[in-house]
Amino acid sequence: MKMNKTDILFLTRAVQLARENVAIGGGPFGAVIVKDGEIVAESANQVIAIPDPTAHAEIQAIRLAAINLKSFNLTGTTLYTSCEPCPMCLGAVYWSRISRIVFASDRHDADLAGFRDDELYEAMTQSPDERRVQFEQLNVPEKGLEFTEWQNSHIKIDY
Amino acid sequence: MKMNKTDILFLTRAVQLARENVAIGGGPFGAVIVKDGEIVAESANQVIAIPDPTAHAEIQAIRLAAINLKSFNLTGTTLYTSCEPCPMCLGAVYWSRISRIVFASDRHDADLAGFRDDELYEAMTQSPDERRVQFEQLNVPEKGLEFTEWQNSHIKIDY
Repeated sequence: MKMNKTDILFLTRAVQLARENVAIGGGPFGAVIVKDGEIVAESANQVIAIPDPTAHAEIQAIRLAAINLKSFNLTGTTLYTSCEPCPMCLGAVYWSRISRIVFASDRHDADLAGFRDDELYEAMTQSPDERRVQFEQLNVPEKGLEFTEWQNSHIKIDY
Repeated sequence: MKMNKTDILFLTRAVQLARENVAIGGGPFGAVIVKDGEIVAESANQVIAIPDPTAHAEIQAIRLAAINLKSFNLTGTTLYTSCEPCPMCLGAVYWSRISRIVFASDRHDADLAGFRDDELYEAMTQSPDERRVQFEQLNVPEKGLEFTEWQNSHIKIDY
């Protein structure tokens, strides 16, 4: 898809949200979600303010967009973000079914500014026992019953 | 670290949260966060209920734990989860600095139950132009100023 003035406008807004957040002591990230040419949600990083380690700008914007659009399915929206999403936010993009992402800085720029995005992308490719975080699989008697019950459920909504 | 009765107790609680959630039409996932032998937060998947595509059990439990402990840094806690975390939740674990993860089912079990965890782990290793979601990097005049301002900030809190 060709870049156009609208893309520049919304991406600039995302960067401005990041800059405004730095001015009040927050993290340097901003995100805007657009549907049919209109902003449906926007946020800066709120990790420190809440506090909530998951409150990256993209995650917050996705949460707000889902609430505003009354759906966990954001198909047809575009996410404008000041920086390439980290793995957590990329995962959120997949689950939300956002259709398109436009970003300004990338993971290497984030790394230079002291954020661990590069390390996180590496962790995604490691097996659980190679990771810095200790991972253990444990069997319990009820293990897996939730999946059987889900598959047999008549009230479930696929998401 | 050796598995013990406490691990079995908390992991069983996570699976029970998943099963209780299925019974009310929610997704089949539950998570419990423990510090010093006490539960500090727990949640089932709330994607459908809110709606919020980021509201996986682990993410919701991390949010609550951070609020309850008044810190975005959850060092020293253990996350018990009914299923191996997806990439979004694994990213959240890294950002939260949770020290240890104990899980029952794994990503392949989730895949068999119809969840796309395997596809997501694959997307993490792809370059942006290989992914199903359309990714575009765009230059805007203010790009990167937020990182410079962050590095020069005297009020920032590293996170």
